Amino acid sequence: MKTRFKTRIAGLVAGIALSGTAAAFEPLPAQPPVPADNPMNAEKIELGRMLYFDPRLSVDGTVSCNSCHNVMTNGTDNRPVSVGVKGQHGGRSAPTVFNAAFLSAQFWDGRAATLEDQAKGPILNPVEMGMPSEKAVIERLKKIPEYVDRFETVFGKGGLTYDNIAKAIAAYERTLITPNSPFDRYLRGDKDALSESAKRGMKLVEKVGCTACHNGPNFAGPELPTGQGFFQKFPTYTDNKYVKKYDLMADKGRYEVTKKEEDMYMWRVPTLRNVALTAPYFHNGSVQTLDEAVRVMAKTQLNRDLSRKEVRDIVAFLESLTGEIPPQVMPKLPQTEGFSVVGDQ
Amino acid sequence: MKTRFKTRIAGLVAGIALSGTAAAFEPLPAQPPVPADNPMNAEKIELGRMLYFDPRLSVDGTVSCNSCHNVMTNGTDNRPVSVGVKGQHGGRSAPTVFNAAFLSAQFWDGRAATLEDQAKGPILNPVEMGMPSEKAVIERLKKIPEYVDRFETVFGKGGLTYDNIAKAIAAYERTLITPNSPFDRYLRGDKDALSESAKRGMKLVEKVGCTACHNGPNFAGPELPTGQGFFQKFPTYTDNKYVKKYDLMADKGRYEVTKKEEDMYMWRVPTLRNVALTAPYFHNGSVQTLDEAVRVMAKTQLNRDLSRKEVRDIVAFLESLTGEIPPQVMPKLPQTEGFSVVGDQ
Repeated sequence: MKTRFKTRIAGLVAGIALSGTAAAFEPLPAQPPVPADNPMNAEKIELGRMLYFDPRLSVDGTVSCNSCHNVMTNGTDNRPVSVGVKGQHGGRSAPTVFNAAFLSAQFWDGRAATLEDQAKGPILNPVEMGMPSEKAVIERLKKIPEYVDRFETVFGKGGLTYDNIAKAIAAYERTLITPNSPFDRYLRGDKDALSESAKRGMKLVEKVGCTACHNGPNFAGPELPTGQGFFQKFPTYTDNKYVKKYDLMADKGRYEVTKKEEDMYMWRVPTLRNVALTAPYFHNGSVQTLDEAVRVMAKTQLNRDLSRKEVRDIVAFLESLTGEIPPQVMPKLPQTEGFSVVGDQ
Repeated sequence: MKTRFKTRIAGLVAGIALSGTAAAFEPLPAQPPVPADNPMNAEKIELGRMLYFDPRLSVDGTVSCNSCHNVMTNGTDNRPVSVGVKGQHGGRSAPTVFNAAFLSAQFWDGRAATLEDQAKGPILNPVEMGMPSEKAVIERLKKIPEYVDRFETVFGKGGLTYDNIAKAIAAYERTLITPNSPFDRYLRGDKDALSESAKRGMKLVEKVGCTACHNGPNFAGPELPTGQGFFQKFPTYTDNKYVKKYDLMADKGRYEVTKKEEDMYMWRVPTLRNVALTAPYFHNGSVQTLDEAVRVMAKTQLNRDLSRKEVRDIVAFLESLTGEIPPQVMPKLPQTEGFSVVGDQ
């Protein structure tokens, strides 16, 4: 399996070969790919930032994109599964929004091709933000004059549409990139950026086989055409204590969307960037610590029992993937005078 | 009643007499009073800002101070009553945090003397942030090394205490002042800052009697010693359609705390600053629009039926009380590596 993927990667990414490491490790680019039909500009990003933080996009005015993908806490909520409107729990752990712009497909099961497609989902999901329809979202935002004006400025006359809400949010999300991690600084020549333990861990993730899937600049697989997710089966090896302990087969992954047998237990390979800060782990958030997550992955994906020292070194390496969160300006959300657009659902 | 309060006020506040207005209207000071035992400094304010936005102060990691007192939406959540952990609803509407530093007592019933006292309440309230005890809060924050360091820097060795959590949050809240409203600019000499309708409204609120209670720089009553709330009975006149329609007597106000007969239906007079942006209205958030709130107050407090034009002018004046929200920097919340401090409650 390892060999197969290394071959595949070789044709897709231009790796930076480093002396002492055979793997194709790459620093995070400063900018993610930007789709031709949604170019970024300052006004669109600002509108997207407002929408991202605006709880009025949820039916009862309590949940914003940022509630679960909190940019103040590493782009996630650090919960097993997220909590939506009316105290409802979601089925999967919220993936970090940071560097999601580098993924070729979104959601744990890759069911959305782009950030734009992804942004449309949670707003209408009954257990997340719970708005009843696209029309209801538009009707609500139309009551907020500054939003109407801003959509027109950014997208032209009649610019307040559900597609454009998603475009603005996606444009903001493409600014949520975390460059300059110790690992990136090391790759760029600062040999002191990594501890000795992290350096051993870097060799181990390749030797053990983690990088067969967690490769590329985002450690989420090779660069692929938009919408073509990089999927892997999880768990691959099921005859171990972890599968039952962490209930790893209750959710059938991509199969739940496609109902195709070949998608059973297939998941989009998640990024390892900032992984030290996004506990708890896995699609169901069942594993609370990073060292245990490393043990689980080694056993379920590579049928390997790591030594304590190996786990420690790999964790040290993973901790070196924590990048710099860009400074965040808090939006001033457009206001309504004399009334509120949310009721008491 | 009007006369009695005007007399009381005269002895307490140094009003600015303006030509053309007999009422003691005052601009909002740039700085609120600061208690001697909690001086403000940049590091304390920054620590308080972090705590204010940190959902890990709630039992399941979903609710921060900012969830209900959202500084991006006028210091409130624009909901009838707020939603706390596990989808639970509170009993009263969240008052705005903006300019709360000018109040001599906190909460709708004035049960907390200071911002410091107030900040300790919601964290432990089972239907708000739901932490089981002060000790549990401290134990959780102790797992976050940067918090431990920051508390020591600000408060000295062993600085991470529940009292100091409240002090830091209060220091941040004292920065949440909204000066320079059109009304303030008008008071300072810019005669064009108010529309003709707002100018008529300014005269009306005095003539009708609103300013008997809503006076002083924060329109929340006279300056009083800390902890001595400025209370009024609401509703005063009960023989009208509004009391039943908006269920204004279900909650007995300050009586619920003191169980004293004299506190029956007594409420701390709320600020009118930014009132146009804090719908819905009243302690139970039952009134959805500002014009209806004006009608209800005139009838229940002054037994007066206002004409449409009077309501319109008063609303125009109230809209002129919208100040400038200070630019908000988003905190970077202290992080934990390899684990999360919140579980799946």
